[in-house]
Amino acid sequence: MIDINSDIGEAFGAYPLGDDEAIMAYIDSANIACGMHAGDPIVMECTVRLAKEHNLRIGAHPGWPDLQGFGRREMALSPDETEAYVLYQIGALAGFCRANGVELIHVKPHGALYNQAARNPALAAAVARAVNRFSRQVILVGLAGSCLVQAGLDLGLSVWSEAFPDRAYEEDGSLRSRKLPGALVEDPAEAAVNGVNLAKEGICAVVEGQVVTWKVDTLCVHGDSPHAVETARLLREALIGV
Amino acid sequence: MIDINSDIGEAFGAYPLGDDEAIMAYIDSANIACGMHAGDPIVMECTVRLAKEHNLRIGAHPGWPDLQGFGRREMALSPDETEAYVLYQIGALAGFCRANGVELIHVKPHGALYNQAARNPALAAAVARAVNRFSRQVILVGLAGSCLVQAGLDLGLSVWSEAFPDRAYEEDGSLRSRKLPGALVEDPAEAAVNGVNLAKEGICAVVEGQVVTWKVDTLCVHGDSPHAVETARLLREALIGV
Amino acid sequence: MIDINSDIGEAFGAYPLGDDEAIMAYIDSANIACGMHAGDPIVMECTVRLAKEHNLRIGAHPGWPDLQGFGRREMALSPDETEAYVLYQIGALAGFCRANGVELIHVKPHGALYNQAARNPALAAAVARAVNRFSRQVILVGLAGSCLVQAGLDLGLSVWSEAFPDRAYEEDGSLRSRKLPGALVEDPAEAAVNGVNLAKEGICAVVEGQVVTWKVDTLCVHGDSPHAVETARLLREALIGV
Amino acid sequence: MIDINSDIGEAFGAYPLGDDEAIMAYIDSANIACGMHAGDPIVMECTVRLAKEHNLRIGAHPGWPDLQGFGRREMALSPDETEAYVLYQIGALAGFCRANGVELIHVKPHGALYNQAARNPALAAAVARAVNRFSRQVILVGLAGSCLVQAGLDLGLSVWSEAFPDRAYEEDGSLRSRKLPGALVEDPAEAAVNGVNLAKEGICAVVEGQVVTWKVDTLCVHGDSPHAVETARLLREALIGV
Repeated sequence: MIDINSDIGEAFGAYPLGDDEAIMAYIDSANIACGMHAGDPIVMECTVRLAKEHNLRIGAHPGWPDLQGFGRREMALSPDETEAYVLYQIGALAGFCRANGVELIHVKPHGALYNQAARNPALAAAVARAVNRFSRQVILVGLAGSCLVQAGLDLGLSVWSEAFPDRAYEEDGSLRSRKLPGALVEDPAEAAVNGVNLAKEGICAVVEGQVVTWKVDTLCVHGDSPHAVETARLLREALIGV
Repeated sequence: MIDINSDIGEAFGAYPLGDDEAIMAYIDSANIACGMHAGDPIVMECTVRLAKEHNLRIGAHPGWPDLQGFGRREMALSPDETEAYVLYQIGALAGFCRANGVELIHVKPHGALYNQAARNPALAAAVARAVNRFSRQVILVGLAGSCLVQAGLDLGLSVWSEAFPDRAYEEDGSLRSRKLPGALVEDPAEAAVNGVNLAKEGICAVVEGQVVTWKVDTLCVHGDSPHAVETARLLREALIGV
Repeated sequence: MIDINSDIGEAFGAYPLGDDEAIMAYIDSANIACGMHAGDPIVMECTVRLAKEHNLRIGAHPGWPDLQGFGRREMALSPDETEAYVLYQIGALAGFCRANGVELIHVKPHGALYNQAARNPALAAAVARAVNRFSRQVILVGLAGSCLVQAGLDLGLSVWSEAFPDRAYEEDGSLRSRKLPGALVEDPAEAAVNGVNLAKEGICAVVEGQVVTWKVDTLCVHGDSPHAVETARLLREALIGV
Repeated sequence: MIDINSDIGEAFGAYPLGDDEAIMAYIDSANIACGMHAGDPIVMECTVRLAKEHNLRIGAHPGWPDLQGFGRREMALSPDETEAYVLYQIGALAGFCRANGVELIHVKPHGALYNQAARNPALAAAVARAVNRFSRQVILVGLAGSCLVQAGLDLGLSVWSEAFPDRAYEEDGSLRSRKLPGALVEDPAEAAVNGVNLAKEGICAVVEGQVVTWKVDTLCVHGDSPHAVETARLLREALIGV
């Protein structure tokens, strides 16, 4: 069955965020924030433990160093800086994995870093290099059809292509901007249907006039949306029959 | 021959600090800042590479999360918080070690964390737990005679006792406060003589009316003092004959 | 009628905190976080506007530079550092007041800074100097009977003594530590009764064997407790008849 | 005589930067960092005092919230965020001015914020709004010919157009990117000659095929270049005869 992932461990200090424990019942892979866009050492420790209890695949979820912007504001870091920041965050999370006797399975960038690395080959290569240098056993997760997926393949990494059942797609296969109407699929049942389609058929996109199909390895459920748990539950149920 | 260590990689962003490369010629072990009191991902990457080129033992130098205070202001973190913060920093540095094909050999806390863990058994135990959970192969470095050394021994860790040739000691074996006159030994030659004595005889301290001797495994040369390189050079030469 | 104050504007970036708008209906004075322990420029701008709409007295709520610890972890800043950090935060909030055409009325330190300045005369004097240098028209708010109140009086500042209807007091007039059982008065009705007593009779404390009474100028309702709004409402109603 | 300005107070915590005191002998206006890209409360306090002793015009030098990048990495903050961040920083510095009995005379954005506001009308308008809301007496300093200058004029603010004697200009009047060869004029004598020309003749630029001349109100000498003090001295001397 296709993997379901969610970004979790995005609390910070006194600030809770989302209901990580509730959503864990319905997902396979947990992308855990690493302290730069969200998360802190205590949150990371607790989240790794919780994910271990739920037998989830644990991955690092590195982001730009911008807590106030939650890693959602684009930043112009050089490829070398990006590589170092991603490596730093992978290492930090891997420390908690090691201390808790679990493996770090994957790395999925967060927010603006994810989006910039999807479009920018030099940034994508930097993220892939960080993963490759940390371990060739670690899976790189990126937007289906993106530069990041390509950069991982170029280095011979295991790569998972990701799709978003609760997001609308443009004809070119990119995610519709959150600033545009209809970008978010708010109805959990509709998102579940989308998820089944993505799992079965992948993403159809028109690239330079050609129709291409991108396979999808993992579906993301956003942990911080109001319907996150319900979406995850319905998606899980819908996928059982696939 | 006794080990000589130095705290390095304490630059941050646009701000240089000390002359790491010059001092590396005379030391054995490099304690590398991990981004909380000093250092950042780019600095860590460069410093690990430089230390590798010099065949140094590389260790993590975790500190309180207080860049403005350079980790020198005491903070009241709980033992659990302290454990998590230290583990985070060890992991982050270990990521750069792994990416550069070198081992993380030791962990030595920085500044106020070092001093608080020297006196406070609960904090010391928290630091030792972080090391122990990360790896039982990693050496814990602490002030000779301190709670931190004891906490490491209690967990069965390899522990190195540290002494400071360029600092004055009180009769009870503690370091004289930097706020008091005479706390710093400014003359490199005098520091080198101190170093030879510490290597040969350890530290004599009066604890609860009893004279005790603490052996010394490693001598610290401060990288940010104006005479750091000269002190390291003279100390290295003086120790050759020991 | 006695003043009711609350600490608000303690959201940060993507993280909400408390229901500032709901509580504003029942309070007189808003202590607004200034970006060091909580709050950020966007939060400060919005909170000042909201407080202005509710015709509240607006004050700065400076804290230690420790977002991860929400300003609740003790830090050892020198008096000079403390003075500068408090002045920085007062200025930052005053900028938003000025831009919104309202006056900055008071300054009340937050969390660990509040508690340390209550006990430590040198820190208390540093906080009072920051207020005094910014403006002699600004009121300093401190724990009734504390060093901070005394430090303000020593400089000839207007000072308000604060009490906590939802906290238990020790016999010496200090707040019972949150770590001890019974420290928090969870029942809003009980807190309202406490508030009326504090307003009428002040605080009776035994200091060096003598019974002293401290008058109370303002009552604090914690905005981040689950019963905050209900407590504020009942307290406001109870005080109307006083 | 034309104004000479310099960006100062860009030390941070334990990290010094530049020789502020030496350069103050040759400049008129000090742009003081406000804690987001550089500077901290202690540095701001000391720098305001030092600038006051040298009878300099004191201005705020707000930047992006990016200490690791020294405010030189582009960030995608919204106009509302930008306005709030600039207002925060103006207020913070104004607090130290008020405490030291001096006026805040001007505001000049730093680094990437300066450059982005030079090109982007919406960001420029946000910066100008922050200044306008803080005080209509404060002068906005921006790159000659830029969107920022225009945004200030649109709000009826006093605006100073800035030029850089130690930087090369492109034909369209923009600064040559630091990434290109020849971007920096390293010879202090050559920079001084440039400064005299800029003061006398302004900047000639070709905009949409038309030659335009921008007057220049203030010349910037970079405080962190190795020749900063020498450049400032020669520039000051050269301008005396103009």
